Amino acid sequence: MCESDGGLVVARTPQFRVIRVVDGDEARRFPAFYRLIWNAHVAEFSDLPDTDRHACMDAVTEIERVLRSLLAPTKINLAALGNVVPHLHWHVIARFEWDSHFPAPVWAAPQRDEVAGGAAARLAQPLAAVDAAIAQALSCRC
Amino acid sequence: MCESDGGLVVARTPQFRVIRVVDGDEARRFPAFYRLIWNAHVAEFSDLPDTDRHACMDAVTEIERVLRSLLAPTKINLAALGNVVPHLHWHVIARFEWDSHFPAPVWAAPQRDEVAGGAAARLAQPLAAVDAAIAQALSCRC
Repeated sequence: MCESDGGLVVARTPQFRVIRVVDGDEARRFPAFYRLIWNAHVAEFSDLPDTDRHACMDAVTEIERVLRSLLAPTKINLAALGNVVPHLHWHVIARFEWDSHFPAPVWAAPQRDEVAGGAAARLAQPLAAVDAAIAQALSCRC
Repeated sequence: MCESDGGLVVARTPQFRVIRVVDGDEARRFPAFYRLIWNAHVAEFSDLPDTDRHACMDAVTEIERVLRSLLAPTKINLAALGNVVPHLHWHVIARFEWDSHFPAPVWAAPQRDEVAGGAAARLAQPLAAVDAAIAQALSCRC
């Protein structure tokens, strides 16, 4: 995945970077949509040595904790798919009962109209505050 | 989630059980579709203590390794969604470039016709052998 990774970089460490998806339908429908991208070029989670795997999921868990703490989502969704881009990355998505697709996965058909004007306005905190909390949780300079 | 969990139990430990999805569209389209269900009633991955989180992902990784080793899938898909059933469970799915949805997620719209007669016949190994290898990898009696 390229340097920009299609999003805003909110954290960067020697092992991985974290972006927030800011473009397109996904960002408008699911504003608290983060992606942890492993720096080394591996395709599958099991390609990582155990210590890296644990570090990777520890970071995913930190992102999840920040989202739960600041946004109180109905549910967190975690996924490592990579069918289109087979470079290890984890989707960490805050889902809300009012979002356009809930309870369906974000990749499925919508269940209702999108929030007029974008869903970000319904979040309990500005996304910049969430970005900053994630960066702090991962103790990095970006 | 109830005891049967909508699938065939292939492994059971004090911490979790692993089922293979055997009913409905999912099983016909994605025959190597496994689900690790955490026994304790927690909704989110970050609800687990660190040692349990690591044990959970170690087991998910073992399932992934068996699928890669026996079936050589195009890609492994991992996901913990739980929007409908907010009880921690991990989907571990072997995906193939010829499956009905690839490279889209299994929850998205199909990309092509399903394999006539069911996709299981295209796998390199019988599913019973995959089930047995997962049970052995997780060192359990089912």
